[in-house]
Amino acid sequence: MTVRLALVMGDPAGIGPELTARLLAEPDLLRQAAILVIADRRMLEEGARRGGVALDLPVVRQAAEARPEPGRPVLLDMANADPATIRPAVASAEGGRATLENFTLGLDLARDGAVEAIVFTPFNKQALRLGGSTHEDELRYAAGYLGYQGAHAEFNVVDEIWNARVTSHVPISAVAGLITEEAILRNLELTVAALQEAGFERPRIAVAALNPHAGDGGNFGREEIEVIAPAVEKAKARGWAVDGPWPSDTVYLRARAGKADAVLTMYHDQGQIAIKLIGFDRGVTVLGGLPVPICTPAHGTAYDIVGQGTANLEPTRRAFAIACRMAESRRAGTAAA
Amino acid sequence: MTVRLALVMGDPAGIGPELTARLLAEPDLLRQAAILVIADRRMLEEGARRGGVALDLPVVRQAAEARPEPGRPVLLDMANADPATIRPAVASAEGGRATLENFTLGLDLARDGAVEAIVFTPFNKQALRLGGSTHEDELRYAAGYLGYQGAHAEFNVVDEIWNARVTSHVPISAVAGLITEEAILRNLELTVAALQEAGFERPRIAVAALNPHAGDGGNFGREEIEVIAPAVEKAKARGWAVDGPWPSDTVYLRARAGKADAVLTMYHDQGQIAIKLIGFDRGVTVLGGLPVPICTPAHGTAYDIVGQGTANLEPTRRAFAIACRMAESRRAGTAAA
Repeated sequence: MTVRLALVMGDPAGIGPELTARLLAEPDLLRQAAILVIADRRMLEEGARRGGVALDLPVVRQAAEARPEPGRPVLLDMANADPATIRPAVASAEGGRATLENFTLGLDLARDGAVEAIVFTPFNKQALRLGGSTHEDELRYAAGYLGYQGAHAEFNVVDEIWNARVTSHVPISAVAGLITEEAILRNLELTVAALQEAGFERPRIAVAALNPHAGDGGNFGREEIEVIAPAVEKAKARGWAVDGPWPSDTVYLRARAGKADAVLTMYHDQGQIAIKLIGFDRGVTVLGGLPVPICTPAHGTAYDIVGQGTANLEPTRRAFAIACRMAESRRAGTAAA
Repeated sequence: MTVRLALVMGDPAGIGPELTARLLAEPDLLRQAAILVIADRRMLEEGARRGGVALDLPVVRQAAEARPEPGRPVLLDMANADPATIRPAVASAEGGRATLENFTLGLDLARDGAVEAIVFTPFNKQALRLGGSTHEDELRYAAGYLGYQGAHAEFNVVDEIWNARVTSHVPISAVAGLITEEAILRNLELTVAALQEAGFERPRIAVAALNPHAGDGGNFGREEIEVIAPAVEKAKARGWAVDGPWPSDTVYLRARAGKADAVLTMYHDQGQIAIKLIGFDRGVTVLGGLPVPICTPAHGTAYDIVGQGTANLEPTRRAFAIACRMAESRRAGTAAA
């Protein structure tokens, strides 16, 4: 059985329409899933024109009518983003509303079991705000919309390295106070689960230190001694393949050398600096822990290159591949249970 | 006129002896400076054996007797590190004392004007402590020994990207409190001066933000708005080619793309994560702002590969090249003044 996947068009003013169209023009990839495309038909056609590809998809107006099959995606025409009024490279309320409608419908279908994974092209925060959204990010929106109370987290994936973090969008001045054993263990648990879902049987997780030189034996900070190392020990006692704390300027060298499948960082930029240098052009964001795996390219809407035919499809391809793998693994897990 | 340079052998138990010997076996490089090698003769011979090179240097026992010329280095035999007693890959008091003696003599010669630049192979902190040193790092030791009161700083250089930082060996919890306009401007001044000395006529310096997404307009920290951006404006008003604050996960992408010659980071790992990923195997450390330019490979004593013939000479070559360039530029500046 093939994965049923929703391909959600994000912000219509960015490179999303051309990425969506170009992904749908890759026959090898289309065979891997039964894809329901959630987008405005006219905007997808415009994306095909910009992307230099020809599409010929069956179109339906109701999700219940759609019968996508492997190699034969179906377009659910949302009729919500008109290329005649949505200008390229301009954040608009209309674009923001369309993005949210598409994403929300994907979540509805996931909740109803009609799709098993979601891939979306980038959202534009400003357009979402103009469109009336008050959610802080896609992860919280999805969890809130699905009424999901369990632990969940955003992962960044580049090549075969997954990245998770204990703190994220907080000032540097607040980071140290948020590093607790409990927070580290909760994030390790999520990371183990997400990577197992993505096909790593016993994921090896390298835990980053907080301070320079991992605190240099307590000379420049004691969090490594008092919090992080004890958390790593507890994680090992649970049977997880966890090590560290590693100085943050070498932990990604270890991961890049194949010595870890994931890195748990203590703060946002510790991981982001590394991930973007390793492969700015190959990054995928995974919303993990939710009832449905959701993946998206790590880049943004790239208003500066809309319609130029230079948008890099690779991160979207990789988002698609990871989403399929996670959905398959989840299905196998459910069947076995 | 050619630069007069002291090549100081660092820790004798590490890869320093083989790096020193191998550097001295590169004729193209030797032509660029009149090199006084400050080392134990026996240990240098041992380094030549380990490094698989043959050396034939004139040997003196007093610096005043040495007459090095381009292409014809002279060894000042310190007779302080006997390979018969100093075991490879073991930190020892004898090794630490020899390292300090060599370095101190180099500083003496610089103070007296006998040499215009110093290059040293890596020191071992544990050996230095065993040898009786209490200095925290080479930079502070050199400044203290020279009685130099002016501003000075350590720079990390990889490829053509220089890195300076406002804070260094302090806990993450203390970083935000140390980010002041004054500290940023002082470091920018040093960076401009060091890069000009290294041959950048009007160095372009990208200033990193402190918080994730550069604080996202004040949502995750206000240091960008209240401190860093005003400091950048003042730097511009002084005529320096400074921009920022840039989010720290993209500032090195800019530099790597050739849009900046240097990056000023707010904390240690912000720069170190990037520098090590960009070129762990090509990094140079520059002690800048001192009366004499001092350069060293960024790696350590590498006890794990001593004598295996696998030590990478490239960082030492680059340290040598930067030291020569800085000394030449300083001499040109003095002549012009």
